Amino acid sequence: MPERRIAVCDLGSNSFRLVVFTAADTWWRRTDEIYEPVRIGAGLAETGELSEDGIARGLATAEVFAHFCQASGIEEVDAVATSAIRDARNAHAFLDHAALPVRVLSREEEARKGYLAAVNSTTLADGAVLDLGGGSMQLVRVRSRHATELQSWPLGAVRMTERFGLGEGTASKKALRALRDHVASELQDAPWLPKAGQRLVGIGGTVRNLAAAVQRAEGVPEFGVQGFEISRGALDDLVARLADLEPADRGRVPGIKPARADLILAGAVVIQTVVELGGFDAVEVTEAGLREGVFFARHIGGEPPLFDDVRRRSVLNVAGQYHVDPAHTEHVAHLALGLFDALAEAGLHPGHARERELLWAACLLHDIGVTVDYDDHHKHSRYLVFNSGLPGWDQREVALIGQAVRYHRKGMPDLGGFDALMRKGDAAVLDRCALLLRLAEDLERSRDQLVRDVDVGLDGDTVTLTLRADGDVRVARWAARREGVLFRRAYGRELAIA
Amino acid sequence: MPERRIAVCDLGSNSFRLVVFTAADTWWRRTDEIYEPVRIGAGLAETGELSEDGIARGLATAEVFAHFCQASGIEEVDAVATSAIRDARNAHAFLDHAALPVRVLSREEEARKGYLAAVNSTTLADGAVLDLGGGSMQLVRVRSRHATELQSWPLGAVRMTERFGLGEGTASKKALRALRDHVASELQDAPWLPKAGQRLVGIGGTVRNLAAAVQRAEGVPEFGVQGFEISRGALDDLVARLADLEPADRGRVPGIKPARADLILAGAVVIQTVVELGGFDAVEVTEAGLREGVFFARHIGGEPPLFDDVRRRSVLNVAGQYHVDPAHTEHVAHLALGLFDALAEAGLHPGHARERELLWAACLLHDIGVTVDYDDHHKHSRYLVFNSGLPGWDQREVALIGQAVRYHRKGMPDLGGFDALMRKGDAAVLDRCALLLRLAEDLERSRDQLVRDVDVGLDGDTVTLTLRADGDVRVARWAARREGVLFRRAYGRELAIA
Repeated sequence: MPERRIAVCDLGSNSFRLVVFTAADTWWRRTDEIYEPVRIGAGLAETGELSEDGIARGLATAEVFAHFCQASGIEEVDAVATSAIRDARNAHAFLDHAALPVRVLSREEEARKGYLAAVNSTTLADGAVLDLGGGSMQLVRVRSRHATELQSWPLGAVRMTERFGLGEGTASKKALRALRDHVASELQDAPWLPKAGQRLVGIGGTVRNLAAAVQRAEGVPEFGVQGFEISRGALDDLVARLADLEPADRGRVPGIKPARADLILAGAVVIQTVVELGGFDAVEVTEAGLREGVFFARHIGGEPPLFDDVRRRSVLNVAGQYHVDPAHTEHVAHLALGLFDALAEAGLHPGHARERELLWAACLLHDIGVTVDYDDHHKHSRYLVFNSGLPGWDQREVALIGQAVRYHRKGMPDLGGFDALMRKGDAAVLDRCALLLRLAEDLERSRDQLVRDVDVGLDGDTVTLTLRADGDVRVARWAARREGVLFRRAYGRELAIA
Repeated sequence: MPERRIAVCDLGSNSFRLVVFTAADTWWRRTDEIYEPVRIGAGLAETGELSEDGIARGLATAEVFAHFCQASGIEEVDAVATSAIRDARNAHAFLDHAALPVRVLSREEEARKGYLAAVNSTTLADGAVLDLGGGSMQLVRVRSRHATELQSWPLGAVRMTERFGLGEGTASKKALRALRDHVASELQDAPWLPKAGQRLVGIGGTVRNLAAAVQRAEGVPEFGVQGFEISRGALDDLVARLADLEPADRGRVPGIKPARADLILAGAVVIQTVVELGGFDAVEVTEAGLREGVFFARHIGGEPPLFDDVRRRSVLNVAGQYHVDPAHTEHVAHLALGLFDALAEAGLHPGHARERELLWAACLLHDIGVTVDYDDHHKHSRYLVFNSGLPGWDQREVALIGQAVRYHRKGMPDLGGFDALMRKGDAAVLDRCALLLRLAEDLERSRDQLVRDVDVGLDGDTVTLTLRADGDVRVARWAARREGVLFRRAYGRELAIA
């Protein structure tokens, strides 16, 4: 399949954004982006109309987008408009003259794009999706990965800031209470919310900024906010902190973007109220949003268009982008998983399915760093793993995959400063993952798939690996012999290669 | 040109190493490496022969190398042996049974490979190259980039450590003096040394470790040792510090690899003596070495095989590896350099050739980070620039290129913690480089080379850019208008786009 480029133009209340997605047979990624803070919805709450200035800014930006697509040869363009343009009485003044054909999404359609983004970038099967924009908020109930309720309210961060006067001065308790009451009253239309289940996935710039602020406050080592969970307690603390600050100072809270300083408090309170009403323990953050939803709807087959297995797809997507010797990589995974299963069979480790999946991911991604440079490619692989975010994996898992990849050549594995994300026993999980990846890499050192399989024998204190191959396994045996020390640490046994 | 793979096997006194180089039409890089600490030269100083154990380890490793090349389908293999195998009376016991055809390099040939490595990875035109290995040290006099003297002495780090008993206990002043006297006496064979000129380029693991230790001691932000200068004073301080430590503790000095703990002092003293005798102010470090020399001799045409312009070649090599939209990248460089020249013409900046070259490099490399991810690709581009090392550029220049690339989209440029590397006026150099790169990127925002050229007009306080193009320059004008603030900071004028 040749590369396919799709430009998604998201004409929102607060900003217009053009994102180019490029898709090939095994991967997709964002490859370009143009952002313009159009604020076409400014003043809408008051007048019910788009202002003349707002329309002029919107039209100029649409022309830039159209011209950009034409000049860069992107034929597949999907421009969608949301809350502000949907709700304004005079929207035609923009739509009739826009240089792009624009689809105005209905409230339900907008909610559906957020749902597609969330369910294709997390493991959410049952629960709810919250998508907070400048103009509106969408909530979707999800059951068995299907959307069963799709709703939208004019509770966006810009609107609520304007309506409750939260953009100036410190926030009074009264104003905050009024906003909460307003949200609660609107959400009476969603009687399903308290019964939605345990999980709430959050989408949008407000959610991402709040997550970054909580990460900084908690001193969590950061690699983006994908998969991060904002606990209810942390959210409450952050709201209290923001309320005590002047708007300009809110933008100085580490993690909050200055451009969002005036909007962050109202947005945070809306989210906090949803969390309370729904009885959720946390908000799980995904970086995907409306634009990804529009892209997924075109890119993934099926109805609804869902990836079969988001975690698997994420790993294959990253591996596919760097495309490093797939035959080798897949054979390393085959050998490592074979060892994992045989060692579990022999009673040498628990053999949990989740650990096996971590090992698989580390195998598939261990060599992507050679794209940067061969020297230190284990470190570059870790950098790329952390920067890819791996939608569907939580941050603890991404950290474990990154550290396993980091130690796939040499050195004694350690948690690399990610202790705060870890659970009891994770140091041992990492040891096993790094070791089995290393052993598989050793056995496949000549990259020719000569060692087909490995038999594992346990005799007293010694674990013997017998290599099954059709030729001379000298290189494999030579390479594997150096793993004795780590093997002893991971399994408390001696390693022998037969 | 299809990719060509060459395996260079370097059978040294201390270690055997196989390195795979992959070369395509616009780039080359290392793509694999196998290392084995064979120490075939152990005991040679005493007996004049390779030990039985050493030979057995050497033969086993050679078989692994041969098998690896065969299994991975590398047909072009060049195995070279140096000092230990060259000098041992019983070398045939290894050579006759080695699984690879081995070329034993003469002293002069070995020196020549180091020279090729140095002159193709630095800007050295006149001066000397020092290559210190485990068995021998080579010195080459370079005039107008040609080797005019090629010499080698059995002054390697392993030999000197053994001979002067520097591998045990703290070093006595007497032992150090004896080593210095020995080196000085041997170097009477190189009467050209004091007349060689100002520059000394150093090669080999000892040099790299010393550089890393000096970097740590000086708190220089690090991105490898390529291009780093070890000043004479810093080297003297480090030797004094190492001499006071037990060998095991020398390996704990930050920057010194534990595996080199026993050898580092003797190696450092040999280098220090060369620096003194030659009257050099510093040793410039390159990460290239014998293996690159062997590769360059096969890869570069001409006699001697020299890159025409090492700095240019380094940048093109990195750009070629990531291969990001060359038409766009080159056009950004064209526009940025056009602006640079016109602004110099208008008397708005000095227009130094070196600054122009930095700007060119930043233009060629600004987008390589999209290989990692589109989001934050300016930061990824910086990461890749720092990791590439850019042979031929010094560390200040690499830092400036990295920071210019970092700020090619938004934000106010700063030196990013590299102040220690910078000279007076460099903040302004960075402002100009980042700004002109940004302006060129804006004008080429639709990636279609529509804006062919730019005319620069100066009228009072305003600089007006007039865009020359055959079509609608809306996107370019839209994008460029946001650079007013940085333009004012860099040039103290208003920016207008006509």
